[in-house]
Amino acid sequence: MKAVIIGIGLIGGSLARDIRRSDPEATVLGMDISDAHLEAARELGLIGGKASDADLAAADLVVVSIPVDRIVEELPSILDRVGDETLVIDAGSTKAPICREVASHPKRRNFLACHPIAGTEFTGPAAAVEGLFDGKVNIICEVEETAFAIQERALDLFRELGMRIRYMNPEAHDRHIAYVSHLSHISSFMLGKTVIEKEKNERDIFDMAGSGFESTVRLAKSSPAMWTPIFEQNKKNVLETLDEYIANLKEFRALLDSDQYEALYEAMEQTNRIREILKGIPLNKS
Amino acid sequence: MKAVIIGIGLIGGSLARDIRRSDPEATVLGMDISDAHLEAARELGLIGGKASDADLAAADLVVVSIPVDRIVEELPSILDRVGDETLVIDAGSTKAPICREVASHPKRRNFLACHPIAGTEFTGPAAAVEGLFDGKVNIICEVEETAFAIQERALDLFRELGMRIRYMNPEAHDRHIAYVSHLSHISSFMLGKTVIEKEKNERDIFDMAGSGFESTVRLAKSSPAMWTPIFEQNKKNVLETLDEYIANLKEFRALLDSDQYEALYEAMEQTNRIREILKGIPLNKS
Repeated sequence: MKAVIIGIGLIGGSLARDIRRSDPEATVLGMDISDAHLEAARELGLIGGKASDADLAAADLVVVSIPVDRIVEELPSILDRVGDETLVIDAGSTKAPICREVASHPKRRNFLACHPIAGTEFTGPAAAVEGLFDGKVNIICEVEETAFAIQERALDLFRELGMRIRYMNPEAHDRHIAYVSHLSHISSFMLGKTVIEKEKNERDIFDMAGSGFESTVRLAKSSPAMWTPIFEQNKKNVLETLDEYIANLKEFRALLDSDQYEALYEAMEQTNRIREILKGIPLNKS
Repeated sequence: MKAVIIGIGLIGGSLARDIRRSDPEATVLGMDISDAHLEAARELGLIGGKASDADLAAADLVVVSIPVDRIVEELPSILDRVGDETLVIDAGSTKAPICREVASHPKRRNFLACHPIAGTEFTGPAAAVEGLFDGKVNIICEVEETAFAIQERALDLFRELGMRIRYMNPEAHDRHIAYVSHLSHISSFMLGKTVIEKEKNERDIFDMAGSGFESTVRLAKSSPAMWTPIFEQNKKNVLETLDEYIANLKEFRALLDSDQYEALYEAMEQTNRIREILKGIPLNKS
């Protein structure tokens, strides 16, 4: 098996690790706008070296794990260059703009639109971990647009990685993911911003913050380069979730301001249901 | 050593475990408004049995680990009943209302106002864990109001538990803790509420939510019985933090709505500083 990873960071690098583990004979090569990342990935043993256009044409698998704005820009030209039987997958956190961009591409049948729900708040090849995808969900969009034989090879790979597959249309994906992922990142970034602005003396944050704060603010460590284009591409859905979140915060504020403690209690108690919901999530604490 | 734990939940129960570990000869008794909790705590080996008023009078240490509204209600009468040399500590997440309530109590010298920054989102005696306080910060307020000899015994106990001590006045405590703890809980509760309201079909949340969502929404599992009185007692500070948080969310919304992606990027990048700040926090992942 010959694989080319375009964008050798946390996701691409973790996938490279898993491919090499499951097939020690595999040739895994990389492409990256950062030469330093490519070199680090080679030193970490994630890739054997830099891929050329000839490698793209000869690849069994091409993984496009770059920020979503660059997927939209580069996916058409990547498809131009791959072979007739190459499987191309992405790992973007938005799906509608990407699927739209390649809808009428002559090699649309080579592409499978994916969103593996896996990752950490860290970035770059050094953040790559083995087994990142094990037990995680992989959301596949527009499966019917991909050639049967190519679909099949993708499913074999995901089974090998231990992933659970869910099929969804791109618009539904983008709408739901705005709630369970994109909004979490904004709430965390703005929580971090609020506390940093207030607490000029960082010693006070350091000493008084417990694991609860750490947990809620964890996503504020995430990469702006990755997240800015996600918010841009999913703008409509994200604005809607933000409006609902702000409305709920204002309602909480109004209840507290007018001393309606029973109503506050009830709002929190009803939200405790999240305990049962979360029990089903396969967690990745790394 | 004879200790009485009033409120034998996560905090009281964990303290009971640590006391018994460090002094196997210790007599540890409990009081609780819930007979079921008392019985569970006895069965779990956290306490030897139920404490009487005579036990309070003879106790070396009384721990008041109950919701903050009940601390304000009951602390004066607890102080009335303890012995002249009994050390009484609380573990409330607010400090100003509690300190005000007992300011002129004849036994004020027996009380040390504490806030151990330790805990999880779980409650009740079954949630008690050994070593919960190890490496954590304990914020002590108005230390000068406590008798020297009694202070000393408290510090010996905290050293035994592995805690780091920070002294602070009650008003500063309540102001800072609103940012690094109380606001986190509200942001998490309202995030959970927003997602639950939208996603009537819980299967969708379950399948698409990753560890990022789990982390940001973790505190929404917390007990409304514990948190409603905290928000009530710290209302003024909490309203202020909420206003700033909502203003930051609205600003983010406005930047996204008007396609100002460079400014969005910068806001997130500046908040990435939280990485360095968090490095100093002794985490409790349990």
